[in-house]
Amino acid sequence: MNLNYELKVYVKKFNKHIIEYLDQIKPEILKLSSLHLIKSGGKRLRPFILSKVSECYGIEFEKSLPAAISVELIHNFSLIHDDIIDKDKFRHGIKTVHEEYGIPYAILSGDTLFSLAFKSLENLRQNFSLKIINKAYNELSNATYRLAIGQGLDMYLSYNKIFNYNLYIEMIKNKTAALFETSCVIGALLGNAKKYEIFLIRNFAKNAGIAFQIKDDILGVFGDSKITGKPVGSDIKEGKKTLIIIYAMKNSDKKFQKNILKILGNKNVSQDKIRNLIEDLKKIGAYDYAIYKSNEYINKALYFAEKLPGKVKEILTTFSDFLIKRKF
Amino acid sequence: MNLNYELKVYVKKFNKHIIEYLDQIKPEILKLSSLHLIKSGGKRLRPFILSKVSECYGIEFEKSLPAAISVELIHNFSLIHDDIIDKDKFRHGIKTVHEEYGIPYAILSGDTLFSLAFKSLENLRQNFSLKIINKAYNELSNATYRLAIGQGLDMYLSYNKIFNYNLYIEMIKNKTAALFETSCVIGALLGNAKKYEIFLIRNFAKNAGIAFQIKDDILGVFGDSKITGKPVGSDIKEGKKTLIIIYAMKNSDKKFQKNILKILGNKNVSQDKIRNLIEDLKKIGAYDYAIYKSNEYINKALYFAEKLPGKVKEILTTFSDFLIKRKF
Repeated sequence: MNLNYELKVYVKKFNKHIIEYLDQIKPEILKLSSLHLIKSGGKRLRPFILSKVSECYGIEFEKSLPAAISVELIHNFSLIHDDIIDKDKFRHGIKTVHEEYGIPYAILSGDTLFSLAFKSLENLRQNFSLKIINKAYNELSNATYRLAIGQGLDMYLSYNKIFNYNLYIEMIKNKTAALFETSCVIGALLGNAKKYEIFLIRNFAKNAGIAFQIKDDILGVFGDSKITGKPVGSDIKEGKKTLIIIYAMKNSDKKFQKNILKILGNKNVSQDKIRNLIEDLKKIGAYDYAIYKSNEYINKALYFAEKLPGKVKEILTTFSDFLIKRKF
Repeated sequence: MNLNYELKVYVKKFNKHIIEYLDQIKPEILKLSSLHLIKSGGKRLRPFILSKVSECYGIEFEKSLPAAISVELIHNFSLIHDDIIDKDKFRHGIKTVHEEYGIPYAILSGDTLFSLAFKSLENLRQNFSLKIINKAYNELSNATYRLAIGQGLDMYLSYNKIFNYNLYIEMIKNKTAALFETSCVIGALLGNAKKYEIFLIRNFAKNAGIAFQIKDDILGVFGDSKITGKPVGSDIKEGKKTLIIIYAMKNSDKKFQKNILKILGNKNVSQDKIRNLIEDLKKIGAYDYAIYKSNEYINKALYFAEKLPGKVKEILTTFSDFLIKRKF
């Protein structure tokens, strides 16, 4: 399977349906602000994997679509609010919602997408049993709660300059992996998958989601800015406490640590200093460590995926391969 | 029935259960910020009427509790976000969440309560059918969506200084009445009420909710500050486009209109000028008009309530009487 090609086809379909679905929002200004981030791009990985898992169980794209829309709207809601919280000015190369429409409309756009995510599940009624739809509601509300406490932990760690590996993993388990987990599991639930298979799929997604975030951390520091579309060392500039930085703070001398703290999140620091720090991070093994860790989690994910029947196994392994090898 | 006394008893019970339910939130700082508004007070009218309607249909308090918690959490989520949007510094006589914990934690606290509201409906599983729970999910997601678009319309009207009666009614139908509607209807759904009865209850709540908001508008301008706990003419100071102001802008001369626009939302204006404006608003009939309008909607509400069987009819009429006669 050529995942890059398939993804492109699906992204087009999702975009069309999501934009249609959001057309109900009023007043006009709230519709525009709610559509702003979605129209600016996005990989649509969560609805993609939901639909793909569902398809493995014989469910057509159109039938799982309301659930696919749900997880993507939850993702976008959380990005809009996180961007306000982190004071981020750009995403996907254009202004963030609060930069374009102001904080009030940005808060409300997030809330609107949040509510429409839950509302979208109603549209599963034509094709699925109440039991399945109920489980989908439970999955989605659980994921949104975990997104919130994950973001809370992220803020707590950032504001208090805490660099702790276990808390970091706990944080991304909730902030990133939870919605991947929910996407894969809802896909399986719609397909009426067996309990044991759902268990396997859940554990696949949990670990793949963590690996995905670590890969994101790697790209945010070491990524090729021509491919990622972000400035060199963007996560360093933004002061993000990624796995790279956590490793460096634990595995370097005081002088190095002091230098990190001076540069991290400092918007006035020169490009040269950032480039030097990136080089130094590589030298002390931060890059290798992060690669090692993301592989570790991908292997855990594959351990579960490989026990699944043919089609699901194939899509999940291809997907995890994509997550880990992507350059953007 | 002595509603004031009953309400007090229920408020205590709700507070205990809500605080217990929110104890799961972590990290600690997010728990504190999420509890801040709830612990500061609140009338708990929405969970109260939900439980009461349910009880009329033979459902014990404990069984409807997860749904009662849901609607109260949605109410609190929306207040927290609205306070950020409106830059309000105080509520229930203490600092708003964003004033106490900063905007990032306030945004996230709202999101946390939002997600926990949906999560709470899971706990209906022990006592209700999937069909009923599904309908409760639909009601709740629909209400949250209507809250969002109601708030959107409120912002649009405020930012553009639009004083329009029909748009105002459209706004409070969504911003205020929707959650009353959902609370009453979920109460009836849990009690397995007949379709026609749900229709009547919904229409009661729709109209009673509008009357409730108009009464709120009256108290916000003409209320006795010793009883409301808010400063004299608080809504004028805060620049709210209430029904009182809409009436005044339509039914006064240019000079009067100019004076309103000068004072409305002006934090530096003297107490005397506010007192004078309140007097003048009474003179041109704004107070009488708002009383007339809130009575009109209460009568519409009663028209539907009176067709309901004994117990439900009694609670709804007592409740609507309370909404309209309250002094705080």
